Amino acid sequence: MNDSVDVAVLGATGMVGEQLVALLDDHPWFRLAEVGASDRSAGDRLGDRVVPSGATSLSPRVADLRLAPVEGPWRSPILLSALPSGVAGDLEPALARAGHLVVSNASSHRQGDDIPLVVPEINPDHLSLLEVQRERWPGGLVTNPNCVVAGAVMALAPLHQKLGLEAVVMTTFQAISGAGRPGPAAGDLLDNVLPYIAGEEEKMGREIRKILGTVRQDRVEPAEIRVSATSTRVPVLHGHLVSLSIAFRDRWSPEDVIAAIREFESPVKADGLPLAPVLPLEYLEEVDRPQPRLDRDRGAGMTVTVGRVRPCEVHDVKLFALAHNLVRGAAGAALLNAELCRARGWLDRMGAPGLATPSSAR
Amino acid sequence: MNDSVDVAVLGATGMVGEQLVALLDDHPWFRLAEVGASDRSAGDRLGDRVVPSGATSLSPRVADLRLAPVEGPWRSPILLSALPSGVAGDLEPALARAGHLVVSNASSHRQGDDIPLVVPEINPDHLSLLEVQRERWPGGLVTNPNCVVAGAVMALAPLHQKLGLEAVVMTTFQAISGAGRPGPAAGDLLDNVLPYIAGEEEKMGREIRKILGTVRQDRVEPAEIRVSATSTRVPVLHGHLVSLSIAFRDRWSPEDVIAAIREFESPVKADGLPLAPVLPLEYLEEVDRPQPRLDRDRGAGMTVTVGRVRPCEVHDVKLFALAHNLVRGAAGAALLNAELCRARGWLDRMGAPGLATPSSAR
Amino acid sequence: MNDSVDVAVLGATGMVGEQLVALLDDHPWFRLAEVGASDRSAGDRLGDRVVPSGATSLSPRVADLRLAPVEGPWRSPILLSALPSGVAGDLEPALARAGHLVVSNASSHRQGDDIPLVVPEINPDHLSLLEVQRERWPGGLVTNPNCVVAGAVMALAPLHQKLGLEAVVMTTFQAISGAGRPGPAAGDLLDNVLPYIAGEEEKMGREIRKILGTVRQDRVEPAEIRVSATSTRVPVLHGHLVSLSIAFRDRWSPEDVIAAIREFESPVKADGLPLAPVLPLEYLEEVDRPQPRLDRDRGAGMTVTVGRVRPCEVHDVKLFALAHNLVRGAAGAALLNAELCRARGWLDRMGAPGLATPSSAR
Amino acid sequence: MNDSVDVAVLGATGMVGEQLVALLDDHPWFRLAEVGASDRSAGDRLGDRVVPSGATSLSPRVADLRLAPVEGPWRSPILLSALPSGVAGDLEPALARAGHLVVSNASSHRQGDDIPLVVPEINPDHLSLLEVQRERWPGGLVTNPNCVVAGAVMALAPLHQKLGLEAVVMTTFQAISGAGRPGPAAGDLLDNVLPYIAGEEEKMGREIRKILGTVRQDRVEPAEIRVSATSTRVPVLHGHLVSLSIAFRDRWSPEDVIAAIREFESPVKADGLPLAPVLPLEYLEEVDRPQPRLDRDRGAGMTVTVGRVRPCEVHDVKLFALAHNLVRGAAGAALLNAELCRARGWLDRMGAPGLATPSSAR
Repeated sequence: MNDSVDVAVLGATGMVGEQLVALLDDHPWFRLAEVGASDRSAGDRLGDRVVPSGATSLSPRVADLRLAPVEGPWRSPILLSALPSGVAGDLEPALARAGHLVVSNASSHRQGDDIPLVVPEINPDHLSLLEVQRERWPGGLVTNPNCVVAGAVMALAPLHQKLGLEAVVMTTFQAISGAGRPGPAAGDLLDNVLPYIAGEEEKMGREIRKILGTVRQDRVEPAEIRVSATSTRVPVLHGHLVSLSIAFRDRWSPEDVIAAIREFESPVKADGLPLAPVLPLEYLEEVDRPQPRLDRDRGAGMTVTVGRVRPCEVHDVKLFALAHNLVRGAAGAALLNAELCRARGWLDRMGAPGLATPSSAR
Repeated sequence: MNDSVDVAVLGATGMVGEQLVALLDDHPWFRLAEVGASDRSAGDRLGDRVVPSGATSLSPRVADLRLAPVEGPWRSPILLSALPSGVAGDLEPALARAGHLVVSNASSHRQGDDIPLVVPEINPDHLSLLEVQRERWPGGLVTNPNCVVAGAVMALAPLHQKLGLEAVVMTTFQAISGAGRPGPAAGDLLDNVLPYIAGEEEKMGREIRKILGTVRQDRVEPAEIRVSATSTRVPVLHGHLVSLSIAFRDRWSPEDVIAAIREFESPVKADGLPLAPVLPLEYLEEVDRPQPRLDRDRGAGMTVTVGRVRPCEVHDVKLFALAHNLVRGAAGAALLNAELCRARGWLDRMGAPGLATPSSAR
Repeated sequence: MNDSVDVAVLGATGMVGEQLVALLDDHPWFRLAEVGASDRSAGDRLGDRVVPSGATSLSPRVADLRLAPVEGPWRSPILLSALPSGVAGDLEPALARAGHLVVSNASSHRQGDDIPLVVPEINPDHLSLLEVQRERWPGGLVTNPNCVVAGAVMALAPLHQKLGLEAVVMTTFQAISGAGRPGPAAGDLLDNVLPYIAGEEEKMGREIRKILGTVRQDRVEPAEIRVSATSTRVPVLHGHLVSLSIAFRDRWSPEDVIAAIREFESPVKADGLPLAPVLPLEYLEEVDRPQPRLDRDRGAGMTVTVGRVRPCEVHDVKLFALAHNLVRGAAGAALLNAELCRARGWLDRMGAPGLATPSSAR
Repeated sequence: MNDSVDVAVLGATGMVGEQLVALLDDHPWFRLAEVGASDRSAGDRLGDRVVPSGATSLSPRVADLRLAPVEGPWRSPILLSALPSGVAGDLEPALARAGHLVVSNASSHRQGDDIPLVVPEINPDHLSLLEVQRERWPGGLVTNPNCVVAGAVMALAPLHQKLGLEAVVMTTFQAISGAGRPGPAAGDLLDNVLPYIAGEEEKMGREIRKILGTVRQDRVEPAEIRVSATSTRVPVLHGHLVSLSIAFRDRWSPEDVIAAIREFESPVKADGLPLAPVLPLEYLEEVDRPQPRLDRDRGAGMTVTVGRVRPCEVHDVKLFALAHNLVRGAAGAALLNAELCRARGWLDRMGAPGLATPSSAR
């Protein structure tokens, strides 16, 4: 895989977009060639729109990129979309129609019948829906889950695959950065917890069932798991923590759960995806972990941690899961999907614009 | 009830003790006559050991009280105990043996067969166990629940009484002050959530079942409710928030739950307890409530608020409950129990020391 | 003073406006008769626009007031303005021209030659400028200082009057609520300090000099004090803390400063202003005070606290001062000015509209 | 410099000690060979005493080191001391007497006549005092400044050297981690600022004057600069921010100050110290910088940032400076001193124990 493929980031000045830019600056497979943002900032230099800090910095080439309107036209074969769902709804299909592989973090199309909702370590085979999309457009549209689901479903996947899930009751502790910019006001969140996030709880079950589902006859048959979610916002910068109470189809113990997590093997290990962490899922033995600030950066933000696996008096087992919402839950999720698409040859199969010699990508 | 009864606060320099002192300074039924603390501070002036602030201030008489060793001897008929459980274990029975009515916030004796675990608005009749205690000692020992249970069980009581509870899965968001002094380090809790509180989760089910249980043959037969609790500590000063998912014995809807909460009537209304709030339980209609900072002070910290009552995809109904952990959950809980004991004549029936004319209390 | 005078609050849905409404609900001298807000919310019921909380609640009469456009026309003789400076610039003079006594918290006119900038406990005599305003309009316009200056100047006033100030170097720690709604984003302020507040530092010296100045020939001759201010925003809800280093014209010691603060006597004591605290200025002896959360509510938010008075190695004396920015620093400052205007008979001297029998006000 | 020298970290389980361990794990010049802690944890495995997190991890070899009592005996020629001052007072001289080069972060000996107080980029020549120490012991004792001074003096150094300082008034915003473990309680610091840090303000002037002073006749003649410091603790994890108001001996403008900072050249550039950042001092142009969370990690925590350079109405110029208190202010400061000692050959000149072939170090 010696030639890098050009990618564009759409919505590059938002929180997820900035993270995508950071992950793509110096990426071994991709070259960040274009950036797009709302009309308001179109024409601006990317480096002038990103808040510099000691922890992040852009290479001069990337800092000098000029923001284009998100509508395009785009030259890059791969478009990484961090667009708000209002914009993504119409624009992403149009871009797939124009032949691009659109890898999106937006929620707009996650439930589309022929749209794969993919976590590479869980359901890479769902990419086969890209074949179904050929009836609609020459390009492709791949989505990743909501930032909370991204962590929770990683913890649930081995339990579903090995032990058989029946029901999940989950309560989330979501970080501020999950709300984008400007996000909640300091005056609302200091010395407080917000017990409501608009439109959030409904997504959880639908997305978990689709990711853990099975592709049959050109669509995904969702896994039969009942999911009840409660979402809250807490005064934490990054890292969504989730408390889960889990009912299995059969009786399983905390030890069985721990074993399933420890024995989990990623189905994309052989693909050598640059962003894939050594451990996509890590069990922490300490009695008081995972904690958002201490554990969100494991595996460069791509490792999901699980802890406090213990018996549940109502269901079978209780546990906590944690994931970095901007990396594993958003920018990293989208980029890992793009890597998977390339590794599995989907890019070659599209006549994506800008792929002068598509065959060279492999 | 024209004569005030003398009370002592044991553990007066801790967080709960300070709150008790504040509630008793200028109380219509009780006179704070004595204060006790660990040997270390015995002899000190109370006013020199309490951190003054704009929001709290002590009357000169109370500030001038001298701290005595908690072991006594005490002259006051009523002892309000905010002792750590290590000390309370042996000391509280000894003080009941000495003829005092000990009203305790400590966890040590809550599960004793003949020890009432009382929330006045829920199970005032459990005080009849004081009669059973007569076999052991001339005084009495009454306890209130854990600071999280105090709020949760208030929300659950009308649902249990009217609709019939089967199971509860709850996740807590507990405030810093629930950990006493010095409590968690700022460096551990800033930009973080702690997913573990030692010894906390186990108490929840036991206490809820006992409070909602029935007195039969000299002991309490616990309610048959399965309870699964997950406890966390969040960066909030006061106010324990709880997310609850509830299964009923029959199918009930969110509307039924809201009606049960709104129609709840306190069984101690006629007792005229000074600390009893007009609304022990309040349903908040706003979509994003209750919130710890905005709602913990309702009813001077004695009102438990409930919100976000909605269908649960796994059980029947989900909701949030919130209570001020230091008031409704600790100091106010103990003091309300003391008020109930006096109102219902239990003090007269003991030959409590210092009750010169016990009959005058009614 | 047996008849209450009608007042309107302009900008009633902002943070300062809400505080004004709360202070006016059940005020002994004034009746909150009208409320105004931006066109966007005009027509709404006041109670529907204010976030309810356990600590604040509106009487049914006040909650039922309907928001009118801020331009008026207004019937109330006194208008309390919590308008943004952009709106206040043109509107406040127009309302004074219409005969109202406008008591404003906005910064727009504070430096006007004939506009009194008043802190009742410091320079009540500056109200004489209202006489000068007669050349311009039948009503009047009175202003109070910026929310940081309100606390700092209260601490500086006795030092200026008794000891003689030469220079002040001050660094502020300003609370979130000082920025209004929505205020800084949680993601910017958590685990952080913002070392810049736009337009803030410049105001400090000008306002301090005017308040401590002397009325001569129809304008205020400013006090000759050099002031250097540095403003920061810290993760605190309410209460602006200020660190001050002070140079006197003569050599004075910390003991002299403490004595001056303790011996300070309010010149409006005899006026019996309802909102005036018993202690407008309080010296705290504890080595680690004042602290925003512990001391901001002293005197119901109207007391300014001073502490840590000690020698300065560069100037003469260093100290800290603290004031509740929404009460002493804004809403309370404006309302106290309105009380002073009434007490000193200024209302009678205007033909204020709505004052059916102006003479009855005294 | 091809042979690495063995070092021991004393006080390895404290906050500064942990940071030293992290900086030494995989250091090009030094090998972390021994670790010491208080008796309580002596014998424990280092890896079991350090809180693991996603951001920090120890190599297996270092994690397996066993904690020894701090008293020694030690085999390593260089001892990096993160001891509390109570212990350091007697122990550090004893260890120098035993022939070790003790590089200490403790405050105990910073003011000793023959003890260099060194910031490599400012006063590397003060190491010549090690020669004076020969009269007392065969080893050596080198200290670094207090964690606030470390940042402030870096900003002041070029101003002193090029422009000539007369007086500095400074107010600090110190992070939680500066207080070590457990540090301030969350209940004291949430929604609050603490305006007092015991024993802190007095150190500032003394240390700044010594570092900017001149070695004459076997001791340091302090620079003649008046310094007035005010210390506060704010709810920030890491990064001490300082607001400074500066008077020069001559009149200098903000532009002169900015130029002096930008033109600053490190006198140890040629020494190639591994931990020395490319920019020890960086001027930030943005109007609202430096900010603790955004800028503390520049230069891997070793770069001091300066911003908001502007005229002062009382003195000449005002500005902010920021440094990571655990890195530039403590562990990094000590380690950089150790690197400097080695680079400049001081180690060879001592018969340090464990230096089998001391000459090989160069």
